[in-house]
Amino acid sequence: MQPQIDLTAIHSPADIRRMDMNQLKALAASLRRPLLDKLSAHGGHVGPNLGMVEAIIALHYVFDTPDDKIVFDVSHQTYPHKMLTGRMEAFTDPAHYDDVTGYTNPSESPYDLFSLGHTSSAVALASGLAKARDLAGGTENVVAVIGDGSLSGGVAFEGLDYGATLGSNFIVVVNDNDMSIAENHGGIYADLHLLRNTNGTADNNIFRAMGYAYRYVHYGNDLPSLIKAFSDVKDIKYPVVVHINTMKGMGLPVAEAHKERFHFSGPFDLKSGSPLASAPSGTEPEDYADIFADHFLKEIRNRHDLVAITAGTPGVIGFGPGRRREAGRQFVDVGIAEQQAVAMASGLAKGGAKPFVGLASTFLQRAYDQFSQDIALNRQPAVFMVFYGSMFGMTDETHLGFFDLGLLSNIPGLTVLAPTCREEYLAMIRWAQDERECPVVIRVPGGPVISNPSVALLDDYSAPAYDIVSRGAEDGIALIGAGTFLPVVQEAAKILAAKGIDATVINPRSVSHLDETTLSALKACKGIITAEDGIVDGGYGQKIASYFGRDAVKVVNLGLPREFRNRYNPSELQKECGLTPGQIADTAMSLME
Amino acid sequence: MQPQIDLTAIHSPADIRRMDMNQLKALAASLRRPLLDKLSAHGGHVGPNLGMVEAIIALHYVFDTPDDKIVFDVSHQTYPHKMLTGRMEAFTDPAHYDDVTGYTNPSESPYDLFSLGHTSSAVALASGLAKARDLAGGTENVVAVIGDGSLSGGVAFEGLDYGATLGSNFIVVVNDNDMSIAENHGGIYADLHLLRNTNGTADNNIFRAMGYAYRYVHYGNDLPSLIKAFSDVKDIKYPVVVHINTMKGMGLPVAEAHKERFHFSGPFDLKSGSPLASAPSGTEPEDYADIFADHFLKEIRNRHDLVAITAGTPGVIGFGPGRRREAGRQFVDVGIAEQQAVAMASGLAKGGAKPFVGLASTFLQRAYDQFSQDIALNRQPAVFMVFYGSMFGMTDETHLGFFDLGLLSNIPGLTVLAPTCREEYLAMIRWAQDERECPVVIRVPGGPVISNPSVALLDDYSAPAYDIVSRGAEDGIALIGAGTFLPVVQEAAKILAAKGIDATVINPRSVSHLDETTLSALKACKGIITAEDGIVDGGYGQKIASYFGRDAVKVVNLGLPREFRNRYNPSELQKECGLTPGQIADTAMSLME
Repeated sequence: MQPQIDLTAIHSPADIRRMDMNQLKALAASLRRPLLDKLSAHGGHVGPNLGMVEAIIALHYVFDTPDDKIVFDVSHQTYPHKMLTGRMEAFTDPAHYDDVTGYTNPSESPYDLFSLGHTSSAVALASGLAKARDLAGGTENVVAVIGDGSLSGGVAFEGLDYGATLGSNFIVVVNDNDMSIAENHGGIYADLHLLRNTNGTADNNIFRAMGYAYRYVHYGNDLPSLIKAFSDVKDIKYPVVVHINTMKGMGLPVAEAHKERFHFSGPFDLKSGSPLASAPSGTEPEDYADIFADHFLKEIRNRHDLVAITAGTPGVIGFGPGRRREAGRQFVDVGIAEQQAVAMASGLAKGGAKPFVGLASTFLQRAYDQFSQDIALNRQPAVFMVFYGSMFGMTDETHLGFFDLGLLSNIPGLTVLAPTCREEYLAMIRWAQDERECPVVIRVPGGPVISNPSVALLDDYSAPAYDIVSRGAEDGIALIGAGTFLPVVQEAAKILAAKGIDATVINPRSVSHLDETTLSALKACKGIITAEDGIVDGGYGQKIASYFGRDAVKVVNLGLPREFRNRYNPSELQKECGLTPGQIADTAMSLME
Repeated sequence: MQPQIDLTAIHSPADIRRMDMNQLKALAASLRRPLLDKLSAHGGHVGPNLGMVEAIIALHYVFDTPDDKIVFDVSHQTYPHKMLTGRMEAFTDPAHYDDVTGYTNPSESPYDLFSLGHTSSAVALASGLAKARDLAGGTENVVAVIGDGSLSGGVAFEGLDYGATLGSNFIVVVNDNDMSIAENHGGIYADLHLLRNTNGTADNNIFRAMGYAYRYVHYGNDLPSLIKAFSDVKDIKYPVVVHINTMKGMGLPVAEAHKERFHFSGPFDLKSGSPLASAPSGTEPEDYADIFADHFLKEIRNRHDLVAITAGTPGVIGFGPGRRREAGRQFVDVGIAEQQAVAMASGLAKGGAKPFVGLASTFLQRAYDQFSQDIALNRQPAVFMVFYGSMFGMTDETHLGFFDLGLLSNIPGLTVLAPTCREEYLAMIRWAQDERECPVVIRVPGGPVISNPSVALLDDYSAPAYDIVSRGAEDGIALIGAGTFLPVVQEAAKILAAKGIDATVINPRSVSHLDETTLSALKACKGIITAEDGIVDGGYGQKIASYFGRDAVKVVNLGLPREFRNRYNPSELQKECGLTPGQIADTAMSLME
């Protein structure tokens, strides 16, 4: 009979180091229960956390955390870690579910070393901790925990390559559950497969080839095996990889069976796995990813040159398993490897194909050099669809979507378009797929899909051509609303109209280029307000302010401050930034004075 | 006796495909002679080109270029390729030396597929070409040629990882000369060493582990061996690595013996290897890299927490072999792996050390995600020294240094400083080395070192505090000169003074943050001119224009247009941008009207 574990008595890893093996096993079961409750009621990273319960217990049992240092890659698998390091209540008491974030966070606990959410950097970070230790003459263990899916990111390789040369204690735990977010893609995964199938004995061993000692744990959810392996490498004097074979979603049959669907999930029914509180089947609201994916699947019936590319996040561009099958070889998942996705797109375009790379805003910053050199400098007409590039997207500080405008729109030769509605979005996609000269970025609007059948469409978006949606008094106010914010400034214009002020409303379509013909006609205005879905610094509005620097017209740039935010409320942030229709109307009034 | 080769008769690779082996060997010798003449008289990438003469002959002999496609990584090793593809004169006739760039360039030749200068992307680019071929049903060979030094870059790994899954013709030639720019650093190099020492037979084989077939050529400067190997893999139906062991600097004894010094060299004496036309020993002008390196070496006598980090370019921060030895374990070369350099710095700072990462402006863009997540979001007080971040730096389109301002200064929490002279540079370095709160970027000024003993220094640069260098009329003109451009606007102020106009001159010190106290006092001015050493878009001046958007004061932002330039003349570009003192004075006059 398993002993009873009182979770409320666990305040730090010291409390589990006193346990015997039976108690530790009972602890794993005891952690999984509230974990399942929270995940199903609240949503979160289901598979990664369920799979790592035993490994995290074993790590804290063997290593003297927080003196020994553990860096968790991505850190979305750290719910059990949080439970063992003073934050149990956030998992056992629904009233406290939101006390913690879904990632390690140094402001929560000294056991959390970094705020992370992008994959693949843990080994590099840990190599710095190890080097600092060596310079200071310390003796603590430094451990990086990285999943197999994260290994495909270039910085993971860079970290492993350097870490192998440290010549001192450096422990890399490779958590291999044979899955990325979706299935893995890449040559190394054949090697991981081989290692799993040979109990770690195969000659072809990527880790040994990189200079690491190597140790394989076949039962990566078996506490005695894990504790033995970690104990054996504790205080080791050289770099070692401990390769553990874990079960993603362990303990929840539906998650074990459907690993992609349960990588991350909103609230769901524990038994059936069905989403809770979803719209009745067939009535889910359309999203921009689906619109793209459906359009793409229609187009490829006649065009073999089109390729959709994802870097490990097919869901971001609407490609679930069914659509991936339908697209066949015209859909490519390169694994979590954004640099590869962007550089490969350059090669595809050069070779005469037409790639559409779909990226979440927060991840495209992992491929800046490829956007600049391989795409822009080489003028390769690839298309990039940027999803969640919006304050109304992901709100974790690690996944913010409001920095990409300044990043992409200041690279020479990139045309960055900001569609404002379904119709314009499709028109821009259609134009881009036949464009042979310039690389194009389509920044998908934030918020729900908006239909605007009266939007003025163009056949050619290569030259900046702002749309004057409504024309007000020449010496009045102009509101320029980019992307998501066109409908918002239109609302503001209505408020102004009610006060007898006819504002000019402009949809710039492009956020990278100035339409000087349209703009020069605004010099007679009293004031111009720009509103964009991103930080003001380096963005679209500041180009407008600079353009009008010598003119009497006043320019106000609305957008977000240059700050990281964590789990913010988008409506509140909108208000804080003066970006509601009422506030924009008030600002316009103030410019009339 | 070797046959005579008439180089003027070689117009395309077709002309060498008719040759027999004796003629091909004679061709190699015949190419090396003008190559040596040009390299010694003109400067360029010495070692990489001399080492690749035979391999490039063999590639063009075996493969049906340009139908078969060869992507050269970095492409600084392509002088022999240019000689064989219609550009012989640019190497045999000094009057035509400058007809070609030092990199592949599609505007020069259809044999050049991409304009490249940053390492490590060739495999990813080639994977796109291969995929495009497969979609189109083509049968041409796709070949990526990548050096061992470039393998440490993350995108090289991402490309190899994906390429292994292509399931079709994909040939990666690894040109292994056992050197990066300096010596190699990283775990994979032990494996390459092992492979060389076992004639390619070792069990530990990183390429096989990644899923490639593998072939080793021990005599990588032997034409029959190379031709045999390339012929064997031609038209292969799966991904293969051909690992060739070449001699960097082959044929020039002094370059074979001093590989780092002759990676790239200015003009030199062919016999002695001594630089031509250098300053007499001991009178070389000081540069900012030397100033940093000397300062650092002095500081580490008492501080074990300081670490200087380079990503494969130690010369950029003044660390030749002698200084590297002196710094010992407090100098780290992570190999060409900028992501690792930046993320590792975060780990070092978290671990209590104080890292100084030295990067060339053009390469820091390879680590944007690490600057954002690992450094800025985590507020780790690492220091980044950005060299060649200037229009007066490197002028090849692949190595431009005027895009970094907008890139770094728009990341929340990074303090980007722009010193204007030797004294300020050292003061900022000294402050940064004791700063425990915020990450700091020091953007090294362009051009020769300037000494200004009267510059106003601060003990603390954490908060923006602009220096009013000279105070003019309150309702007059203010000139804000950032970094390199402070002395330029000071010259402009002198011109204005001669016309009776006392301009206010400001050194902002920080190009990331606005000192609103100082700025608000300028609202009474007629005009403000900002001058910065980078593109205007996304940069410093546009923040100023936006700040004054509601005010009557006119703002003119001077800087570079958002364009790539190739081998430009810096003085002409300065003039084109209105950035000379006379032009700035004229602009100021126009604002007074």
